[in-house]
Amino acid sequence: MTEDFVQTEAVQTLLDKASGISEDGGNDRLQTITRDLVEGIMKIIVRHDINESEFWQAIGFLQGGADEYGLIVPAVGLEHFMDLVMDARDAEAGKSGGTPRTIEGPLYVEGAPIVEGDANLTSDPDDTDTLYMTGQVTGPDGEPVKGALLHVWHANSKGFYSHFDPTGEQTPFNNRRRLKLGDDGRYQFHSKMPAGYACPPDGPTDQLMKMLGRHGNRPAHVHFFVEAPGYRTLTTQINFGDDPFAKDDFAFGTREGLLPMPNRQGDSAMIAFDFQLQRAAAPSETDFSARQRAHA
Amino acid sequence: MTEDFVQTEAVQTLLDKASGISEDGGNDRLQTITRDLVEGIMKIIVRHDINESEFWQAIGFLQGGADEYGLIVPAVGLEHFMDLVMDARDAEAGKSGGTPRTIEGPLYVEGAPIVEGDANLTSDPDDTDTLYMTGQVTGPDGEPVKGALLHVWHANSKGFYSHFDPTGEQTPFNNRRRLKLGDDGRYQFHSKMPAGYACPPDGPTDQLMKMLGRHGNRPAHVHFFVEAPGYRTLTTQINFGDDPFAKDDFAFGTREGLLPMPNRQGDSAMIAFDFQLQRAAAPSETDFSARQRAHA
Repeated sequence: MTEDFVQTEAVQTLLDKASGISEDGGNDRLQTITRDLVEGIMKIIVRHDINESEFWQAIGFLQGGADEYGLIVPAVGLEHFMDLVMDARDAEAGKSGGTPRTIEGPLYVEGAPIVEGDANLTSDPDDTDTLYMTGQVTGPDGEPVKGALLHVWHANSKGFYSHFDPTGEQTPFNNRRRLKLGDDGRYQFHSKMPAGYACPPDGPTDQLMKMLGRHGNRPAHVHFFVEAPGYRTLTTQINFGDDPFAKDDFAFGTREGLLPMPNRQGDSAMIAFDFQLQRAAAPSETDFSARQRAHA
Repeated sequence: MTEDFVQTEAVQTLLDKASGISEDGGNDRLQTITRDLVEGIMKIIVRHDINESEFWQAIGFLQGGADEYGLIVPAVGLEHFMDLVMDARDAEAGKSGGTPRTIEGPLYVEGAPIVEGDANLTSDPDDTDTLYMTGQVTGPDGEPVKGALLHVWHANSKGFYSHFDPTGEQTPFNNRRRLKLGDDGRYQFHSKMPAGYACPPDGPTDQLMKMLGRHGNRPAHVHFFVEAPGYRTLTTQINFGDDPFAKDDFAFGTREGLLPMPNRQGDSAMIAFDFQLQRAAAPSETDFSARQRAHA
């Protein structure tokens, strides 16, 4: 049995019907993509001689693992792939330059407090070092970006995010703020150092990683959205360059240019990091993606 | 930008790492299949110029729709495709013949009462016609199959299954029995006529069907497993030949040879239907697939 089986009339007719292509009405684009996706899965079933039990085990994994798609999607490289695709599309459109984008991850929460000046991000006690970050948001020609909003979110020293902490110990928006910047585009904040973390033990992502012979660890990192009128909204993060997983992130979120080395002195660590934005070629480029996000 | 993008070193390295192929250890088969599946998705993303928002909307649909994979998988044709694949593999192995297999669906419940003789399947009052079914389970040479267990499950006249009834009105195992057959392989049961049904209104399957320009209806039907020592376990169902959706089943479960015409007289409907099993070429062929099933 070869992949030609998928080209038989019975299977092609099934694909036309299942995708709605042979029906009146429906969304043409969704029909075409659905047909392609289902046909691709069919080819893989035949190519690898996948049996009924394996098929249902895979479906069962995807069904039982749905709560962790936010981890599984980056773990299998698809979230980073979308960044590579967007980079390539940008290059084709002559939109290169500026701070690299990287994965958002699943743990942003809308509605964090908006603060100004030298901001403290950490509301809860956390017995660890203090992170001091400073820098400037500029445009492609080095001009200071005016009226920027810098969204910052990171884990605590146990590797847990507020609103998603299984211990239930964090207050809302701990280590989450939106920094309203002035005309010089400069920012400054301090917070308690985040720790790297692993995907939840024995959860579906962890199980998948083990079956693939992989680990499920991320280096310590800080997430950012940077938005400003007239500029493209940037989704990025810095990972600490001295973390043991800095070059071996299970979620493929670490990138060249996003691995600053903290200057660690006593119980503090300092990072200077500038953001360079691209100008928005269209108003839609100031939008966020339509990804579903948590809100408090 | 063309699909060649997926062949670039950056993406191929990502695929090797993400699938664990470049790591020591791990399950080789799972690594290879994961790599193929993720690469197939990547190609579709590039081929159809899928943007970040569309990507996350698709992930969000699959995540939010996980409870209905039992409907979405047949709806997109994949459950029927597995039947076509198993038929083709059987044909290659010289195992053709007997009653056609068809989709199991997601609503089997383990542990139904085992009954003998002229069985009544319906425990609850149901103001509709009575279905009378009779027939025989035979082997490939027409010999009566001894010691067969005929699992039967179907919906009530509202189209709801016990254990999955959103109205909560049915008692456990209503319209579910396992019929223990004698040496002659004959069976006989009666129950209250099932109705066809649509996937849950406004649920993810229903939404998908509407966006694809399709309906989400199944004709009225009765599910069966037939198991007997020395024979291959058969998963099948009959759909009523006079149902308006008999030839237009959104789940692709209806097949030639499985569409008997009920003999309707007054408030009863009679169906005579024989099952022909194949002999088990190996003990494993008497097993059920490893699909996750509900148990009461």
